[in-house]
Amino acid sequence: MSSRHCQSALHPLDPLTVDEVQNVSDTLRNHLGCAIGEIRFKVIDLAEPSKAATLQHLRGNINAPERKARVYYHLKKAQDLSIAIVNLVTKRVEKQYDAPGSQGPVDWDEYELVNRACNNHPEVQAEVSKLNLPPNARVINDPWSYGTDDANERRRLFQCYMYIALSNDDEANHYSLPIPFAPIFDAHTLELVELQRLPTGTSDELDIDTQPWKPVKPVEYSANILGKNAFRKDLKPLEVIQPQGPSFKISGRRVEWQKWSFTLGWTLREGPVLHDMQYDGRPLFYRVSMSEMTVPYGDPRTPYHRKQAFDLGDSGFGLTSNSLNLGCDCLGHIAYFSGVRVTGQGQPVVMPNVVCMHEIDDGIGWKHTNFRNYKSSVVRNRQLVIQCTATVANYEYILAFVLDQAASIHVEVRATGIVSTMPIRQGLHVPWGTVVAPGVLAANHQHIFCVRIDPILDGDTKNTVVYNECHPVIDEPEIDPYGCAFKVSTTPIERPGGYDLDITKSRTFAIINEARTNAVSGKPHSYKLYPVPSQMLMMGPKTFNFRRGIFASKAVWVTRYNDDELWASGEFTNQSREDTGLAIWANRDENVKNEDVVLWHSFGVTHVTRPEDFPVMPMEKFVMSLKPTNFFECNPSNDVPRSNQGNTIAVYLRS
Amino acid sequence: MSSRHCQSALHPLDPLTVDEVQNVSDTLRNHLGCAIGEIRFKVIDLAEPSKAATLQHLRGNINAPERKARVYYHLKKAQDLSIAIVNLVTKRVEKQYDAPGSQGPVDWDEYELVNRACNNHPEVQAEVSKLNLPPNARVINDPWSYGTDDANERRRLFQCYMYIALSNDDEANHYSLPIPFAPIFDAHTLELVELQRLPTGTSDELDIDTQPWKPVKPVEYSANILGKNAFRKDLKPLEVIQPQGPSFKISGRRVEWQKWSFTLGWTLREGPVLHDMQYDGRPLFYRVSMSEMTVPYGDPRTPYHRKQAFDLGDSGFGLTSNSLNLGCDCLGHIAYFSGVRVTGQGQPVVMPNVVCMHEIDDGIGWKHTNFRNYKSSVVRNRQLVIQCTATVANYEYILAFVLDQAASIHVEVRATGIVSTMPIRQGLHVPWGTVVAPGVLAANHQHIFCVRIDPILDGDTKNTVVYNECHPVIDEPEIDPYGCAFKVSTTPIERPGGYDLDITKSRTFAIINEARTNAVSGKPHSYKLYPVPSQMLMMGPKTFNFRRGIFASKAVWVTRYNDDELWASGEFTNQSREDTGLAIWANRDENVKNEDVVLWHSFGVTHVTRPEDFPVMPMEKFVMSLKPTNFFECNPSNDVPRSNQGNTIAVYLRS
Repeated sequence: MSSRHCQSALHPLDPLTVDEVQNVSDTLRNHLGCAIGEIRFKVIDLAEPSKAATLQHLRGNINAPERKARVYYHLKKAQDLSIAIVNLVTKRVEKQYDAPGSQGPVDWDEYELVNRACNNHPEVQAEVSKLNLPPNARVINDPWSYGTDDANERRRLFQCYMYIALSNDDEANHYSLPIPFAPIFDAHTLELVELQRLPTGTSDELDIDTQPWKPVKPVEYSANILGKNAFRKDLKPLEVIQPQGPSFKISGRRVEWQKWSFTLGWTLREGPVLHDMQYDGRPLFYRVSMSEMTVPYGDPRTPYHRKQAFDLGDSGFGLTSNSLNLGCDCLGHIAYFSGVRVTGQGQPVVMPNVVCMHEIDDGIGWKHTNFRNYKSSVVRNRQLVIQCTATVANYEYILAFVLDQAASIHVEVRATGIVSTMPIRQGLHVPWGTVVAPGVLAANHQHIFCVRIDPILDGDTKNTVVYNECHPVIDEPEIDPYGCAFKVSTTPIERPGGYDLDITKSRTFAIINEARTNAVSGKPHSYKLYPVPSQMLMMGPKTFNFRRGIFASKAVWVTRYNDDELWASGEFTNQSREDTGLAIWANRDENVKNEDVVLWHSFGVTHVTRPEDFPVMPMEKFVMSLKPTNFFECNPSNDVPRSNQGNTIAVYLRS
Repeated sequence: MSSRHCQSALHPLDPLTVDEVQNVSDTLRNHLGCAIGEIRFKVIDLAEPSKAATLQHLRGNINAPERKARVYYHLKKAQDLSIAIVNLVTKRVEKQYDAPGSQGPVDWDEYELVNRACNNHPEVQAEVSKLNLPPNARVINDPWSYGTDDANERRRLFQCYMYIALSNDDEANHYSLPIPFAPIFDAHTLELVELQRLPTGTSDELDIDTQPWKPVKPVEYSANILGKNAFRKDLKPLEVIQPQGPSFKISGRRVEWQKWSFTLGWTLREGPVLHDMQYDGRPLFYRVSMSEMTVPYGDPRTPYHRKQAFDLGDSGFGLTSNSLNLGCDCLGHIAYFSGVRVTGQGQPVVMPNVVCMHEIDDGIGWKHTNFRNYKSSVVRNRQLVIQCTATVANYEYILAFVLDQAASIHVEVRATGIVSTMPIRQGLHVPWGTVVAPGVLAANHQHIFCVRIDPILDGDTKNTVVYNECHPVIDEPEIDPYGCAFKVSTTPIERPGGYDLDITKSRTFAIINEARTNAVSGKPHSYKLYPVPSQMLMMGPKTFNFRRGIFASKAVWVTRYNDDELWASGEFTNQSREDTGLAIWANRDENVKNEDVVLWHSFGVTHVTRPEDFPVMPMEKFVMSLKPTNFFECNPSNDVPRSNQGNTIAVYLRS
């Protein structure tokens, strides 16, 4: 499979191939003079070439920049994370350094080591035995990123939340039976740091000792456990047929669809990434990606105060992406794209079908009827969906980039999966969440995502972010005798920083290219952000929650472009003490007007849990969009063939 | 067709049948002793029975309340609108009164009379001749609701916006060629009131005289005019196949689908209305409807300052609904429902297929993968869509009620069609809008919708609207040493009124039934509003814009239920001077806590126009939702059969 890739020339932003990952791990091991087993690989991902060189190359001016990889690894016995940049062409290690005090993301090898160390630890087993579990019970362990409550902590820690499964079914819902203790393990030494017991009451106060488990029926979603009779019988099949196949074309990782073209990148950290996006041959965005996501929990009881996952920086939407089984997640004709990860030993592992791409019909795209003669033109809203599902332990994020025929791009997140659960005394309620099943608390929490948009409107790297507001004209009777007038104000953003939305003024942010004016409207070419209005991070500026994820405190961020400034909370979020991303980049004293700028949008939800979210929550959908505004001279979808769905079937004609 | 209806017993909230409309017009004419021609019928719609009687009947306690109709009509030569309530069982006129000073909605008969009077008027024709139009040009007329700028105006007026069509094509886009005058006609006398000329510059100042038309190429959307070569060639067909048919059942106007049941009502004013909605046999809502929509324009130049359509009250989403041609608007198996309107002479006219109903697949509904063994459960999000398209002159609203399998209801509006255009001197720009084609200004405007929700959670007419907010716990180190805690506050609304959203606090409004507690969570049964955060009406409290449409000034309204209080701006919006709806109902000094309450949600958009919105604008979608919250004991879609799309086709398997 890898050979197929190597035969064709790679786009500089193509993800690493299997061969490349192997070459990188070999090169690094040779460079370090390490035997297998003396080094544990965590991540090997493309180290993207500079934007300047890549654009030069894409414009045909220079050869492709050399392909390089970024490696995170641990030398055996070393506490510090090590980082290397490996040149795939020269097969040389170009940079190698340690990051003392920073923790890299979780890798599957250490996850399994911690899992096993915990489950086999005599003290843990002794504590489990106090539960007096029935013989059929299994103990299941979800090691969690530890979080931060001590700026001096340097150990690599996992908090092992533990649960009971009462059946051997592969989908038994152990999250319905949480165990009231959560041992902390050191991932380097694999030692038990503390057998932390969990509060099950209104305060931090613990039970005197771990009590025998009171049998309760778990709330299940497994079809096997629920049994045939548990299901509704009246859902008829709905199939999507594309008799001529899909409308897209794929060449390597380059995709063409309905005047769009882009390179479908992929990283272990971000999952799918769209590079070099063009519409009708006009460059729009150099890179669009999900940059980060943080989930702070609002429960202050120890150890829940530390629960704040960064699911990209700590785990990775790529690394945790589901292999989408054929015939499971989508309808119609699906193109699948695979990823590559690395084992601890440095072996590449293909992650088959971690991204799927398909077309959908989203109803009416536009319509007009001439009421004088009933002649009607209808264009349906065909969309291209590029999607992945990341399973981060209990929770699922379905990330989709959606393109349409009116030259808009939408970034959609569906939050689903199983809410994080904790034990609670039966009959008790606490202010920090909702009891979603007997003895099960789902704490309230926030999910705040950050999407990064790197524009190059019409190929120009000089762009400006502006915000428009709509203001009534007040007390100008000469202009506006009846008080109906309103005006649009435009404010260019000149300094980097974080900005608030303001719905009351219809404040909208847009990327404009000051150098290009729309011939019809006389206004600058632009793409406008349609944000997801959201409550921002509630935790105050002194908290670790805030200081680790400053991106979550403002809806819109503007920074000046620099290579490698890709991740909103900085490179290392696991047990981080400070945000080393936007916190720094947005604080620089520099001009961002008519410069190479990056726009970031943070959005999400404050999830007040409900029993309806259990066992698996119906997805909550969040969609942000970027739409052309004065970029085209008329509706870009005016050339889409009109709809005439000959095979629609009328089942009941009524009057 | 009508006989079929008469044979089956009607639900008390079924729309009027063809026979019923005929009976009503006969009964009223007999009662008044009028010959045909002495009366002009405008509207005959169901006059809904009282909620109390209807609920008693639906619970099986009493016979169906008598069916009645509400009639709007004009006696020939009379200026005043007349209203009658006609009992269909007794065939008696129960009420008959005039509404002096109020204007009824526009009817098609007067629309055509005004249109003809204007086009044939010698002064108008003389003015047209000054344009020196080419011989192939046609003059097209869009009589508009006049609006309000004088509290003493009592005439029934139309402002005739006029345009040029340069071809005989049925879809020639005359909105691309606006004429710089707009005669005002009296709809009763059919007299020219004023041949008002339109400003084409930055101020109210007019050209000295109507100037010869400067030829310019219109921007067209007609496939015939554009020609075959104008279209993209690479869009492949996408078909929806339902080999076993749809999952819904229809009996009369009662629909059953995936545990939902409801009666599909329809009125000339509102289009589709959902009555008596139940999920799994549990009553949820007595009535859910689009109540009103207003479009104030932000251009203060005469006569644009008066442009403020109320597209339900002035025109009617039912009356202006498209007959959805088979095979045109939707995919899959479609059920169509027809409506009935009345001619000026009192004849019923079937409006075929004004509402369509079909299922769609909305991607993943929920998903969880056990990362330990890759076992995955996926439920797709099947939805039922009940949809109509209202064409109000230039503009289209696609209104859809969408039900899902997790017991949520969504109200979706797609705004499309052609923006209202006005002439502007070529090369000029004004602060009030965007030039979308040479010589064509599309003024900025707001669309503010109002959805009315009449809850009966679990069949109880006593409900309370509350709002929840999420607040950080501040400076309580004993409870919250790390500052991560937040709490949910709940405030019941005790007095009727208008309320603001507040995204910064995650303020969410919910309908709760205080009498019923969720056995799992201990919280009251409720349905939560997921609003559309929007800039509210910008025009100040002294303006006619505000005083006519107070509903548009606040996002959420709560009132105590009274029969017939259905329309947010009151019964008569055309040329209205004051809001007689929420302005009154929300001002009553009465309790709304644990009472029969109605929740109203106003939302919309401030549309700053762009060339991309022309000739027909790509739809903008707005979705509000109502979701169960502590209403069920677990995910209501846990019983949906898991997805296993056997006929998905992988077109490219890549690695």
